[in-house]
Amino acid sequence: MKKLTILINCDDQSGIIATVTNFIANNNGNIVYIDQHVDREQDIFFMRLEGEFETDHFDIDAFKNNFKINLAEHFKMKWRIYEANNKPKMALFVSKYDHCLYDILGRYNSGELDLEIPFIVSNHNTLRPIADSFNIPFYHIPVTKDTKAEAEDAQLKLCKTFDIDFIVLARYMQIVSSKIIDQYPNKVINIHHSFLPAFVGAKPYHSAYKRGVKIIGATSHYVTEELDAGPIIEQDVTRVSHTHAIEDLIAKGRDLEKIVLANAIKLHLKRKVMVFNNKTVIFS
Amino acid sequence: MKKLTILINCDDQSGIIATVTNFIANNNGNIVYIDQHVDREQDIFFMRLEGEFETDHFDIDAFKNNFKINLAEHFKMKWRIYEANNKPKMALFVSKYDHCLYDILGRYNSGELDLEIPFIVSNHNTLRPIADSFNIPFYHIPVTKDTKAEAEDAQLKLCKTFDIDFIVLARYMQIVSSKIIDQYPNKVINIHHSFLPAFVGAKPYHSAYKRGVKIIGATSHYVTEELDAGPIIEQDVTRVSHTHAIEDLIAKGRDLEKIVLANAIKLHLKRKVMVFNNKTVIFS
Amino acid sequence: MKKLTILINCDDQSGIIATVTNFIANNNGNIVYIDQHVDREQDIFFMRLEGEFETDHFDIDAFKNNFKINLAEHFKMKWRIYEANNKPKMALFVSKYDHCLYDILGRYNSGELDLEIPFIVSNHNTLRPIADSFNIPFYHIPVTKDTKAEAEDAQLKLCKTFDIDFIVLARYMQIVSSKIIDQYPNKVINIHHSFLPAFVGAKPYHSAYKRGVKIIGATSHYVTEELDAGPIIEQDVTRVSHTHAIEDLIAKGRDLEKIVLANAIKLHLKRKVMVFNNKTVIFS
Amino acid sequence: MKKLTILINCDDQSGIIATVTNFIANNNGNIVYIDQHVDREQDIFFMRLEGEFETDHFDIDAFKNNFKINLAEHFKMKWRIYEANNKPKMALFVSKYDHCLYDILGRYNSGELDLEIPFIVSNHNTLRPIADSFNIPFYHIPVTKDTKAEAEDAQLKLCKTFDIDFIVLARYMQIVSSKIIDQYPNKVINIHHSFLPAFVGAKPYHSAYKRGVKIIGATSHYVTEELDAGPIIEQDVTRVSHTHAIEDLIAKGRDLEKIVLANAIKLHLKRKVMVFNNKTVIFS
Repeated sequence: MKKLTILINCDDQSGIIATVTNFIANNNGNIVYIDQHVDREQDIFFMRLEGEFETDHFDIDAFKNNFKINLAEHFKMKWRIYEANNKPKMALFVSKYDHCLYDILGRYNSGELDLEIPFIVSNHNTLRPIADSFNIPFYHIPVTKDTKAEAEDAQLKLCKTFDIDFIVLARYMQIVSSKIIDQYPNKVINIHHSFLPAFVGAKPYHSAYKRGVKIIGATSHYVTEELDAGPIIEQDVTRVSHTHAIEDLIAKGRDLEKIVLANAIKLHLKRKVMVFNNKTVIFS
Repeated sequence: MKKLTILINCDDQSGIIATVTNFIANNNGNIVYIDQHVDREQDIFFMRLEGEFETDHFDIDAFKNNFKINLAEHFKMKWRIYEANNKPKMALFVSKYDHCLYDILGRYNSGELDLEIPFIVSNHNTLRPIADSFNIPFYHIPVTKDTKAEAEDAQLKLCKTFDIDFIVLARYMQIVSSKIIDQYPNKVINIHHSFLPAFVGAKPYHSAYKRGVKIIGATSHYVTEELDAGPIIEQDVTRVSHTHAIEDLIAKGRDLEKIVLANAIKLHLKRKVMVFNNKTVIFS
Repeated sequence: MKKLTILINCDDQSGIIATVTNFIANNNGNIVYIDQHVDREQDIFFMRLEGEFETDHFDIDAFKNNFKINLAEHFKMKWRIYEANNKPKMALFVSKYDHCLYDILGRYNSGELDLEIPFIVSNHNTLRPIADSFNIPFYHIPVTKDTKAEAEDAQLKLCKTFDIDFIVLARYMQIVSSKIIDQYPNKVINIHHSFLPAFVGAKPYHSAYKRGVKIIGATSHYVTEELDAGPIIEQDVTRVSHTHAIEDLIAKGRDLEKIVLANAIKLHLKRKVMVFNNKTVIFS
Repeated sequence: MKKLTILINCDDQSGIIATVTNFIANNNGNIVYIDQHVDREQDIFFMRLEGEFETDHFDIDAFKNNFKINLAEHFKMKWRIYEANNKPKMALFVSKYDHCLYDILGRYNSGELDLEIPFIVSNHNTLRPIADSFNIPFYHIPVTKDTKAEAEDAQLKLCKTFDIDFIVLARYMQIVSSKIIDQYPNKVINIHHSFLPAFVGAKPYHSAYKRGVKIIGATSHYVTEELDAGPIIEQDVTRVSHTHAIEDLIAKGRDLEKIVLANAIKLHLKRKVMVFNNKTVIFS
């Protein structure tokens, strides 16, 4: 069995679902999952479909070509077709904080994340021993104001060399420029340590403490040019009170950050996230 | 436009989705919502579909008949087709507690619940003034051990007279017998004041207090013969601590109960709940 | 038994707790509850204490005077002493939305809120029938740009006439000016329909929808001169997804708003909230 | 400065707080934290107090002795006095699951947990590489039905050798007998993968799936003779739906388990937990 995941979005029109499901049936495919969403504000149609096809009669390139000519062009679709057996390759960018790194590598090691991690890159050498203990190549690329452009060139080169599919900033603490974002649009996942859009930018736990909020949060989003303003993939929150000092917020926040980032990675790698107009549709 | 909601479940088979979506298209319908689920443990297929049909050419009886002959019998489906303009009629059973009643009537009055409430019935007269203030007929049918059978006959007669679609037990505090359940299978909604299956039966807050749990809950479920064991529609929880006495748990629980029950009512009346094997599939 | 609640805050110093507890003991009082907090950032000490005193030997005025001379002046305390049998009087300001009003009046009617509601005031006549059905005087004071000052004078006069202790803005939808705030400092409770500080100001659900957040919230706070920036008393949140349209966010938000506002009212009336530096200490 | 944490419980009586706070003052101590709770059902008084004492004039043994003679015996208190600089020693019992182990060791490595982990013991060799990578001694003590008694002897011997203060069962998957529990009363912390008291015993995620609950949970508790019935320290929950297969519940549950267990460990090591009548008082 060949398993495919198909993601579609286009202007909402009559007959899309019937046409697509017919197309699958005519290609001797069986639909094992279908979900759809219409954004009524903007009249945009979104669809996620998983199908199984008998491999003896199945030519993926012909299928894609037929899909393009018979469906995509007709409905003016944006579309992607993924083969289930292709393991995504994820680059990990870290700095000095280790909690998200430990969490991701622990999940990776136990088989929870169905992906490859060809390398970890950091602007500091601090976390190298952790990378070593999990047997993952670690690259130290220092970043200063003056060397940022070259550092990003080196990072990009690594990503190209290892044929990276997406990048995860696991508390990387550096702003990633458009040089990288443009190469990986909606493919750079960040974890921000606040409940966005509250407390954009640096030191959000300090701001949360100062404001006296009763709940703190963490947000995982795709990175865009505007700081902390990209499409939100996942958020979670936890209660705090006046008894919590800033360091308590930071400690409680770490637990949020690692769980939220891990969930965002899982949604992305299962191709459950579609982005439109700076928002996400999550087919979960 | 004629709007229909179609609910289907059957053994999982190839081609169901394509066949159904084709059927809609061939009847000049447009699918505005489709969601589907396959229970992989039991190989059962579930589907919920909303379609719009041009009324000039649309004969609902012929459509249903064709659906039955061409689809339902072929795939051995259990199916229901609802017309959107039919407002469900809901009977409210209450006892002495008023928080769920106030909450439901407040929502009803402000138009949040798209249904009719032909009457409220109670085994006590306590809440009659509330029913009066909302101009809803109130029937006092006392229930004692000896008169329970006759009381349920009277309740059923009311339900039949007013052509009730479903019954909500808004902290009714009486066990409803199979006499009523059999007439309204998966159509009697109860709110139980615990996080089921923990604390089945009477005085769950007392049991929760005694056990020293750190979280309490409420559960809305369809009533079945076995006490508090029917299919769960909705649950929610809230944190508690050693500082909360039993009366605090009861007060916090009231807020859970009314929100959980209201959400269950909304899911039911939008035909988003399917029941199979004592579990629910919620297409939300 | 005379029951008192004592709230204290002052610069943190050695010996406060022992001195206060001694003072209670020397006045033949028994401490039934004590809680304390030190804000380590600002070195401020907070304390809440409930004591019982035998009424035969107890002179409240002498007690207060002794407290002032022997404790408060020595430690430079800000302090308040409440007698338990004094029921707070709450003014309700509403506009056209009824969900918070129904919720508060339902709780009031069932005895959950240990307070008096001498009147409801509104800039519209819409909710008068609800006030009538609960037998609470309803005053219609229209507010326009030009008449705002006079309207607030009339509102203040009502508050003075009825000897109001605190004001609740139950989705009042008007900005209250310093004329009222200054008369009721940290005694005007608002419910804002977002997770502050995200989405300050008008139409927060529309902003939340546009930003594509995965969690929405509600915030109850004391009103200060700066819009939606006063000390936060209580917050809560609920999950949303791309499937929720703006009207769905509004509906889900209503449930948050009424629960959060009710909790804030309960904390305030039990004298569990202390305000310092635009933040709250909640002794729960 | 000598820092002490004092935990007290006894029958509720007048004057306890004043007497204790006086005692601290008379010993030239400053109270930096005091919290107290009265269980009104059973009339039991609980207190947690942190005090600082100038070391030049402070004799811990004399202090404890005076406390015993002047306070504890008078009020018939159960009491414990901890010195802040004593790092608790924690034994980790594991089996084959690694998520809680990674989580605990990650926190330990980054300094989040202020304790020592002298060893990890397991009935399997599976997790030895993880222990090695964190440089913590790993003991493999196989457990079979026939060898259980000897295995527990060996475990106990390890605990005694390393002067263990408390034991954490990090998904240990074996029932610990009274032989160990009696030596470490309220000092053996377990993580159970359900929202207790729902789904006691083996395979709770399977039971949760079968029952069709909409929320799953995890519970950390002290181990007592009765299975999964000991005093609950911490619980947390997360939403699930019909779309989640059993393996999805297990994956989501892992995240709950590790956070809940870590929180329970932190509460225990900060001496914030008191146990009475199979329930906990958590001074947080």
